[in-house]
Amino acid sequence: MSMNDLGIVKRSIERADRAAVDKLARFGVATIHEAMGRVGLMKPYMRPIYAGAQACGTAVTVLLQPGDNWMMHVAAEQLRPSDVIVAACTSDCEDGFFGELLATSFRARGGVGLVIDAGVRDVKSLTGMDFPVFSRAINAKGTVKATLGSVNVPVVCAGALVHPGDVVVADDDGVVVVPRAIAARAADAAEAREAGEAEKRSRFAAGELGLDMYKMREALEKAGLRYID
Amino acid sequence: MSMNDLGIVKRSIERADRAAVDKLARFGVATIHEAMGRVGLMKPYMRPIYAGAQACGTAVTVLLQPGDNWMMHVAAEQLRPSDVIVAACTSDCEDGFFGELLATSFRARGGVGLVIDAGVRDVKSLTGMDFPVFSRAINAKGTVKATLGSVNVPVVCAGALVHPGDVVVADDDGVVVVPRAIAARAADAAEAREAGEAEKRSRFAAGELGLDMYKMREALEKAGLRYID
Amino acid sequence: MSMNDLGIVKRSIERADRAAVDKLARFGVATIHEAMGRVGLMKPYMRPIYAGAQACGTAVTVLLQPGDNWMMHVAAEQLRPSDVIVAACTSDCEDGFFGELLATSFRARGGVGLVIDAGVRDVKSLTGMDFPVFSRAINAKGTVKATLGSVNVPVVCAGALVHPGDVVVADDDGVVVVPRAIAARAADAAEAREAGEAEKRSRFAAGELGLDMYKMREALEKAGLRYID
Amino acid sequence: MSMNDLGIVKRSIERADRAAVDKLARFGVATIHEAMGRVGLMKPYMRPIYAGAQACGTAVTVLLQPGDNWMMHVAAEQLRPSDVIVAACTSDCEDGFFGELLATSFRARGGVGLVIDAGVRDVKSLTGMDFPVFSRAINAKGTVKATLGSVNVPVVCAGALVHPGDVVVADDDGVVVVPRAIAARAADAAEAREAGEAEKRSRFAAGELGLDMYKMREALEKAGLRYID
Amino acid sequence: MSMNDLGIVKRSIERADRAAVDKLARFGVATIHEAMGRVGLMKPYMRPIYAGAQACGTAVTVLLQPGDNWMMHVAAEQLRPSDVIVAACTSDCEDGFFGELLATSFRARGGVGLVIDAGVRDVKSLTGMDFPVFSRAINAKGTVKATLGSVNVPVVCAGALVHPGDVVVADDDGVVVVPRAIAARAADAAEAREAGEAEKRSRFAAGELGLDMYKMREALEKAGLRYID
Amino acid sequence: MSMNDLGIVKRSIERADRAAVDKLARFGVATIHEAMGRVGLMKPYMRPIYAGAQACGTAVTVLLQPGDNWMMHVAAEQLRPSDVIVAACTSDCEDGFFGELLATSFRARGGVGLVIDAGVRDVKSLTGMDFPVFSRAINAKGTVKATLGSVNVPVVCAGALVHPGDVVVADDDGVVVVPRAIAARAADAAEAREAGEAEKRSRFAAGELGLDMYKMREALEKAGLRYID
Repeated sequence: MSMNDLGIVKRSIERADRAAVDKLARFGVATIHEAMGRVGLMKPYMRPIYAGAQACGTAVTVLLQPGDNWMMHVAAEQLRPSDVIVAACTSDCEDGFFGELLATSFRARGGVGLVIDAGVRDVKSLTGMDFPVFSRAINAKGTVKATLGSVNVPVVCAGALVHPGDVVVADDDGVVVVPRAIAARAADAAEAREAGEAEKRSRFAAGELGLDMYKMREALEKAGLRYID
Repeated sequence: MSMNDLGIVKRSIERADRAAVDKLARFGVATIHEAMGRVGLMKPYMRPIYAGAQACGTAVTVLLQPGDNWMMHVAAEQLRPSDVIVAACTSDCEDGFFGELLATSFRARGGVGLVIDAGVRDVKSLTGMDFPVFSRAINAKGTVKATLGSVNVPVVCAGALVHPGDVVVADDDGVVVVPRAIAARAADAAEAREAGEAEKRSRFAAGELGLDMYKMREALEKAGLRYID
Repeated sequence: MSMNDLGIVKRSIERADRAAVDKLARFGVATIHEAMGRVGLMKPYMRPIYAGAQACGTAVTVLLQPGDNWMMHVAAEQLRPSDVIVAACTSDCEDGFFGELLATSFRARGGVGLVIDAGVRDVKSLTGMDFPVFSRAINAKGTVKATLGSVNVPVVCAGALVHPGDVVVADDDGVVVVPRAIAARAADAAEAREAGEAEKRSRFAAGELGLDMYKMREALEKAGLRYID
Repeated sequence: MSMNDLGIVKRSIERADRAAVDKLARFGVATIHEAMGRVGLMKPYMRPIYAGAQACGTAVTVLLQPGDNWMMHVAAEQLRPSDVIVAACTSDCEDGFFGELLATSFRARGGVGLVIDAGVRDVKSLTGMDFPVFSRAINAKGTVKATLGSVNVPVVCAGALVHPGDVVVADDDGVVVVPRAIAARAADAAEAREAGEAEKRSRFAAGELGLDMYKMREALEKAGLRYID
Repeated sequence: MSMNDLGIVKRSIERADRAAVDKLARFGVATIHEAMGRVGLMKPYMRPIYAGAQACGTAVTVLLQPGDNWMMHVAAEQLRPSDVIVAACTSDCEDGFFGELLATSFRARGGVGLVIDAGVRDVKSLTGMDFPVFSRAINAKGTVKATLGSVNVPVVCAGALVHPGDVVVADDDGVVVVPRAIAARAADAAEAREAGEAEKRSRFAAGELGLDMYKMREALEKAGLRYID
Repeated sequence: MSMNDLGIVKRSIERADRAAVDKLARFGVATIHEAMGRVGLMKPYMRPIYAGAQACGTAVTVLLQPGDNWMMHVAAEQLRPSDVIVAACTSDCEDGFFGELLATSFRARGGVGLVIDAGVRDVKSLTGMDFPVFSRAINAKGTVKATLGSVNVPVVCAGALVHPGDVVVADDDGVVVVPRAIAARAADAAEAREAGEAEKRSRFAAGELGLDMYKMREALEKAGLRYID
């Protein structure tokens, strides 16, 4: 066993079940995150580079070095259809590690989106391509290709642990990671949750209060809430 | 007198005069803020969750605990038509305290917008509903319902003091609080200010300089400004 | 020689060659920044106030004092067609130093955009006017006119050194400064770079890997990259 | 009633009872904040400029303009023995509004400390004088004296509302505001709280668990906590 | 398999070998991080609450909810001699989750330090006790005890993945996590690295240049470095 | 003329006059910054790594690439007695570019301090050596040696423009850059300013108000200040 995972490309990874991925794609990040019990969310500084961007796919992970996007090219070769590239960096860096050319390459290899805890550029072109990107920054500054990172090792990206093959779902609300082993169950749970929301929505729309719908009044009183005039 | 305002819901609050609220709704935040003498503005990290969002109404205030949105449901019952919910938190927290279901509830009870010094989610749905929200963050992470805060107590929200019943005006430029007692005067002052801007606008468009329009040249010279070649 | 540049307006500045400016306007910020060898970029917190804003012109520089926009009016008089105002502040300040009226004035005097390491307001009107603004913040808070700064002295704006007359190019990816003396060469280099990208784009689109296109495999192996299964 | 509080100096303010202030000075900020029910705390970015600084006194408030410390001199005249100056700014600004000379003046007039939501300088001298300062920044940059703010109006300082005459207590843990009207009760509550802590401390030191001391085991079990091996 | 790790306390964890922990305690964080190949470091916002604080021990992990320190008491029971508590939070929160009483309890149970991606309080007392704490904030604000988190599940703390039983080393330079399985090898590598540094130190002190010591001149020339006068 | 300054080492630089440097060393940063007319200050996030650190010397500048400290070794060879190394980075990076070994090397070559807009490590050793360092971060993470930057080109460091040979003065209040050409005049102005402060200090200590000392009462009244009871 090596002491660390730098300089490694893992070629054979086990991806989450396609049916589960497809089902997860029908739900929003907030719904999935709730359905999983509120775990696996990346930090909220991860934002779509254009309104309405959304992506759902299996993670090919990349560990980058600051100011260096060499591994992005190595990762391109490992992509399979429906993969989302998830890129972390060994230290905080907002350089532009990714732009239109890499997006073209990723898409040609089957990639359906990028989640990167760093910066990207060519926002106008990427928006025109409708290639969904979620990043911590937008930055015209390019990078070098000089130092090894890794591909398809577990990474911590924006505070969330991601294993290669996990499902990554991203939309206007953020980015959530669904571990491969529970993808089907998480999709089912999301479906159940969403089903329940439709009824709640119409009751709320009719003016019913959450106080009554969720039967909170007794608990609030017990906690000591006082109504005054 | 109690030592603090936690665990309280004030039901009867005096709201700013409706005519004043309606008049304030015609002006932008920057104009109102200037008209009031540059007071009452929230910090600029408060941003609309979609471009073009705007809201003007009377404040129903909520004091939240970190990671806990119980009081949002309590607040829903206190809403009257034309109210804007203003939510502060006892400590900085960017969890998603609010989403589509609560927006549906708030709207059904008369609420016309939300200003929250915390995070929200369901951005796509909220945008679709055109329910204006101004927040410090967007975050899919939900909250629990376990600890009491308060409703309709004075709060400090994003650096601005808000009393229940004050007018809150929010647009692309930020969020301003107009104390209830001066709402009518502030609206008049905003109207007067905007009237003056039309003339200035055409003079600027015609190429006249602010240096001349505002007669600044003498003051600049007196202050020691030197022109060199 | 004076000990500092406060309180000075330089009237005669040498602007970059118009043909070079026009040529640079055809390229994106990322391309120009790469073509120049990755220098001259402002920090990535500088963002357009509306999607799609872009500007290219010769810099008229302004050094502001915190909370004071007096020098913006002084700068208006120094504008010539195709100028971009570049405003720095002697200390970090996110007040709204600029809005619709100044934009009207700047445009009437030939100004084609604003780059300001501070805040601006009237976002809705500025968007309607399509007056491109790149700033660190949006803030309804106005400023006073009481303390001298300078116009057309060298400034450090968002981490980049700008001399009056330099070319400033701004788009969705950020803001880059092209020193006057190298404007023509930078434009040529950008053109050459962009020409090369078209071919790469189609090769990437056809599925060719960067690993092969850039002949990286040998270097990666030499650096010790290991492929495992 | 005026529309705002700018340009005002209130000379006669009612200060909290001296005995209550003296009693509060015996307790730490965390204890007082707990004793008051967790309200009135400034944001944690407010830090002492040297380790061990602490202050307790009655608030003389100052509302500053960005980059302008004129009102600090106006405030000096309003100081009485045992006052703490509490300075807020109309917008975020980290300039150095205060240094050794003002500290000398404040001390000579009875001031016992400064709490400022902005920057200060002369840290070495202030440390030598043991003049306690709590600020958001340290910054050698000085300020001008050109624009009016106010003295002894209510201010929001680092997220906390402060009225003139309130008690302000500051130490290594932060800064808490005790409203004048409840100063005596807060001091009593802090005393009671601290008395209870001594016993807890020795029980913890003897190895007793909070789980048992606070009888948490049942509630944890009810909430669903599962112990696994 | 459950979908998440909330509400769990794992009692039996395998701790790193004591000899390896003791050996790692002899080296600084920077040395260990280098020796491991530059992995496992927490983000640099994690700072000691007093100068000179240092800790080395086996991790007992805690997953907290924002504003809620209930699980800290649950964790206390799981401590064994030489353990370091490592606390993460499900969302960013700078409340004060820990103070003197918990430190007393942790120490009585064998705990030798705390690493927490949140806030703490009672800095003066903790310093007096010489109980080493590394945190992202100092904050007098306390927390509630209402919502379950977990103890001894894997957590991401300040960007680093920590498994229960891993070695955690913290000093003025930051906090590094050494996975249990490689603790002995990492200690050996740190020892080897430190041995090499003594010789380098004396050569540097004698005026030898890194350019010569590391034989960099040829590589620099090859990379294109130009010396000019 | 080259399009950029990357990959260059300038060997012969003109350093500020030694007498001026020695004289400037007698004054604090705040005094020198005021004496120069409030220009040349670095941003306040630049902080000493230990209390009491101070440095004054002639700048040898370094332009680093993110995550890469190769140029620090190149810079070491260019040091002369009384030089301060001033290191900027082409993009924001908080890695630890510098530690005890480089400090030993710099000191052996005549260096008297480091100002770096990035991170450093080995804080304990550096404090023990009393080698003054001013940085934006402390971080155990090391760097690679793979990409060229430059030595002795003009750099923007923490918002301030620094030319090789300029005087850099740093203490607890921050870091100020004195251009070589005005070093003697700046020292004289600082001396004059400090002389004036002694008298003011004793007048303040005697209770005289700044309102009277600076004759502000009339200007305040004219500006509209109102005293109320």
